[in-house]
Amino acid sequence: MAFVVGRHFTLAEIAQHLQLKFVGDGAVKISAIAPLHEAGSSDISFLSNAKHVAQLSTTQAAAVIVKPEHQSQCQVNVLLADNPLLAFAQLTSLFDDLPDVSTGKHASAVIADSAKIHNSVNIAANVVIGENVEIGENSIIEANTVIADRCIIGKNCRLRANVTLYHHVRMGDNVNIHSCAVIGSDGFGNAPTGGGDKYWQKIHQLGGVSIGNHVEIGANTCIDRGALDDTIIENGVIIDNLVHIAHNCIIGENTALAACVAMAGSTYIGKRCTFGGGVCIAGHITIADDVHVAGMGMVTGSIKEAGQYASGTGLLPVKNWRKSAVRFTQLDKMNKRLTQLEKIQAKE
Amino acid sequence: MAFVVGRHFTLAEIAQHLQLKFVGDGAVKISAIAPLHEAGSSDISFLSNAKHVAQLSTTQAAAVIVKPEHQSQCQVNVLLADNPLLAFAQLTSLFDDLPDVSTGKHASAVIADSAKIHNSVNIAANVVIGENVEIGENSIIEANTVIADRCIIGKNCRLRANVTLYHHVRMGDNVNIHSCAVIGSDGFGNAPTGGGDKYWQKIHQLGGVSIGNHVEIGANTCIDRGALDDTIIENGVIIDNLVHIAHNCIIGENTALAACVAMAGSTYIGKRCTFGGGVCIAGHITIADDVHVAGMGMVTGSIKEAGQYASGTGLLPVKNWRKSAVRFTQLDKMNKRLTQLEKIQAKE
Amino acid sequence: MAFVVGRHFTLAEIAQHLQLKFVGDGAVKISAIAPLHEAGSSDISFLSNAKHVAQLSTTQAAAVIVKPEHQSQCQVNVLLADNPLLAFAQLTSLFDDLPDVSTGKHASAVIADSAKIHNSVNIAANVVIGENVEIGENSIIEANTVIADRCIIGKNCRLRANVTLYHHVRMGDNVNIHSCAVIGSDGFGNAPTGGGDKYWQKIHQLGGVSIGNHVEIGANTCIDRGALDDTIIENGVIIDNLVHIAHNCIIGENTALAACVAMAGSTYIGKRCTFGGGVCIAGHITIADDVHVAGMGMVTGSIKEAGQYASGTGLLPVKNWRKSAVRFTQLDKMNKRLTQLEKIQAKE
Repeated sequence: MAFVVGRHFTLAEIAQHLQLKFVGDGAVKISAIAPLHEAGSSDISFLSNAKHVAQLSTTQAAAVIVKPEHQSQCQVNVLLADNPLLAFAQLTSLFDDLPDVSTGKHASAVIADSAKIHNSVNIAANVVIGENVEIGENSIIEANTVIADRCIIGKNCRLRANVTLYHHVRMGDNVNIHSCAVIGSDGFGNAPTGGGDKYWQKIHQLGGVSIGNHVEIGANTCIDRGALDDTIIENGVIIDNLVHIAHNCIIGENTALAACVAMAGSTYIGKRCTFGGGVCIAGHITIADDVHVAGMGMVTGSIKEAGQYASGTGLLPVKNWRKSAVRFTQLDKMNKRLTQLEKIQAKE
Repeated sequence: MAFVVGRHFTLAEIAQHLQLKFVGDGAVKISAIAPLHEAGSSDISFLSNAKHVAQLSTTQAAAVIVKPEHQSQCQVNVLLADNPLLAFAQLTSLFDDLPDVSTGKHASAVIADSAKIHNSVNIAANVVIGENVEIGENSIIEANTVIADRCIIGKNCRLRANVTLYHHVRMGDNVNIHSCAVIGSDGFGNAPTGGGDKYWQKIHQLGGVSIGNHVEIGANTCIDRGALDDTIIENGVIIDNLVHIAHNCIIGENTALAACVAMAGSTYIGKRCTFGGGVCIAGHITIADDVHVAGMGMVTGSIKEAGQYASGTGLLPVKNWRKSAVRFTQLDKMNKRLTQLEKIQAKE
Repeated sequence: MAFVVGRHFTLAEIAQHLQLKFVGDGAVKISAIAPLHEAGSSDISFLSNAKHVAQLSTTQAAAVIVKPEHQSQCQVNVLLADNPLLAFAQLTSLFDDLPDVSTGKHASAVIADSAKIHNSVNIAANVVIGENVEIGENSIIEANTVIADRCIIGKNCRLRANVTLYHHVRMGDNVNIHSCAVIGSDGFGNAPTGGGDKYWQKIHQLGGVSIGNHVEIGANTCIDRGALDDTIIENGVIIDNLVHIAHNCIIGENTALAACVAMAGSTYIGKRCTFGGGVCIAGHITIADDVHVAGMGMVTGSIKEAGQYASGTGLLPVKNWRKSAVRFTQLDKMNKRLTQLEKIQAKE
């Protein structure tokens, strides 16, 4: 059952919002979005994957978003889209019941006098804002978030509850940062002293973090500040939860990092790359544009060509896995035995 | 040395609390729990693993919890239990010196007028509670935790400091959530636009999170809200620190996820499963009941049968590892060479 | 371009601060640190890696830190150091523009009357401090951090914003804890009950966390409290972001854990070890001094000898990877085929 949010739109209103054509009853009321096989008489659904096309004839939805080529197979009202998944994605914003924080600045917020905050900005309870911070039009800062000195936040940004920005973090417009994300924490830079009471001499991290427009940063994600220069997240980058981005990394435009990706320092990633969950990426390497690495991939060197990459071994019943794991340690020996047999064979 | 908490019980009191029989001096005072080989004259200990049975004759503990079959080997007071580990686990609650938050609602908490909070609930400093939140009997909300609109929290729950609940997260009774856990953050749903200024169209996440009874959620763990329906954590599920649960996952009853497990979206896990630390689980798959995956397992497809699974390769000295890793890339070629030799052999 | 922080020092002042000798114009003003190839006329640079020695003749830096043996190759002012990387690391503290929190105790902080806090301590907005907490000279507690009862914090410590210390966490001097780190959360201890409404009986965690001097703990890192005894982090240990340290681990002096390392419970790590990003370490094992494990290493057993270790397989184009991954599952069979051929060969 889809989650009902207590608001509804007619099909005609939805069509207008999405700038799409509809066929059928424009007055039908839509109160939620649901998958084809779950949708009921007040839901709108969509066909984004041709393998589910048979569901078009059985769905109970009030309307479906389909490509023109599938219109003839629909028994219900249709909304015609060249890209139904994109139309669905755009439609979700209409039904989002994300609560607004109380308007204005909550009395409990602690805001430095030198901060320049646009009048339209919402600042929730217990927010702490440091010296010389700037926040642009219509941005929302949720409860208990801390923004240190000299941060600059653009327009239409939303920092969810309990976010932490260290000093000198700057971002463009339309940036969304989820709870407990930490931006601008110290890069892990330490020089060995060669002994004594203090074994590691901390390298103070003098750079900042620079974030573009239309960036999303997941919950509990960490982006460290640079050592001397900035760590840079370019426009359109989307980052999931629990991701680690070390100092001085540069993430190219529109690249996507799934949850639990870990990047070591000074690595440059190209544009439009995707990294699956749990990928670890070595430091001081360069990854080309349009590289796609499957989940848990171990990236130990630069990748010069676009394409799909993977590493690791598949899951096996433990009994079988043990045998293969033992043989893995003997692979070089197995190769030598094979070579030896081939030599003998060649002589015969 | 065991940690002394400044409270003590007689052996008789402990026996009554656990509803077990004791043999020996019921008046002996017990002030802490300690392992057999570390315990002193005011400690109670236990034998949960038969391989340590020899320690029964040398322990300095005031009393030991043992199976009846081991009673004869004890030189000290005994508490008889069919399951000494379980008895020990139950006993730990007596010695827990977890501080209470100040009773009632702290003056600095910011609580929406529409919230329905039972009189017995403790709300600590700087907590922020949104509109229409409900909190049941005896629950405790620790300092600086943020609970957004429409969340429902049952009885005897405890949210530790700095927890974040996004809107519309609901949980049953006896749920324990550790610090900096984030529940209800947006699922990582984005549709490619095909280019332009905005490369990814965010799919607003319209579902919530539904959590059962007796659930434990670790520190810095993230559970994303569903895209259309809820993400669901069933009764008795226990989740360690830094775990990622993506949108629309369903975790079956009594399943345990160790630290740093990462689950992609729309995956269903059965009952009584256990996942070791660092396991990554692909999206849109189904895992049967009673599946156990060893740490760092890479789960890329559905698992239909109960049992134990693993993946990866064991740790080696780097020099040896390099050789095996190179040969791994040549495995298909090695197989062809082997087949070629077999063919020649067959002809001879 | 290096980040300019609005302060400057003469070369002579820097030389005095680092207790090093300079050659050239001691009055030249230095306002930032930059890499050799990026440095301009008000920057100081350094040569830490001999492979960049050619840059000494082309750098535009005002001064460079070099070993005496490289002095003759410099065209600019020099600062002579036996260990230029260490001198650079020490120098970074001069240019760090880390903001101070407001001095004293912010009015919005909630501090228990029984807490003993040195007059020199800075406590920022919305900090919450529990009963019987002690905080030593010159320590700084940043905004929205929560410190539960009975914690002890030494001198010159800095807890960044949104840190959580559970009760009974103790640390020495010069400890640095980054945002959203959680110290003292419950270890993941649960005893199976054998069924019923409550499948897992929580083992209440009665130990604490004990942290030495000169320790750094990264953002979103979790260190669980011990079950009966303490979890122990020894002097000089440095820990990156998103690391999980389970109950009753002991981390030896000066060991470094990179981001996303996960350690299961009761594991002891020696001194001066380093663990790369994403390493997972099994519970109840012992790791010797001076062990170095490469990123994503899977440590399933004790390591008795110092040295370098690794596991896993390298990244491949997906098409190639699939072939190797399939053959991995057949390794034992391949070995048998090889043995069979060898037997036949031996007979011929």
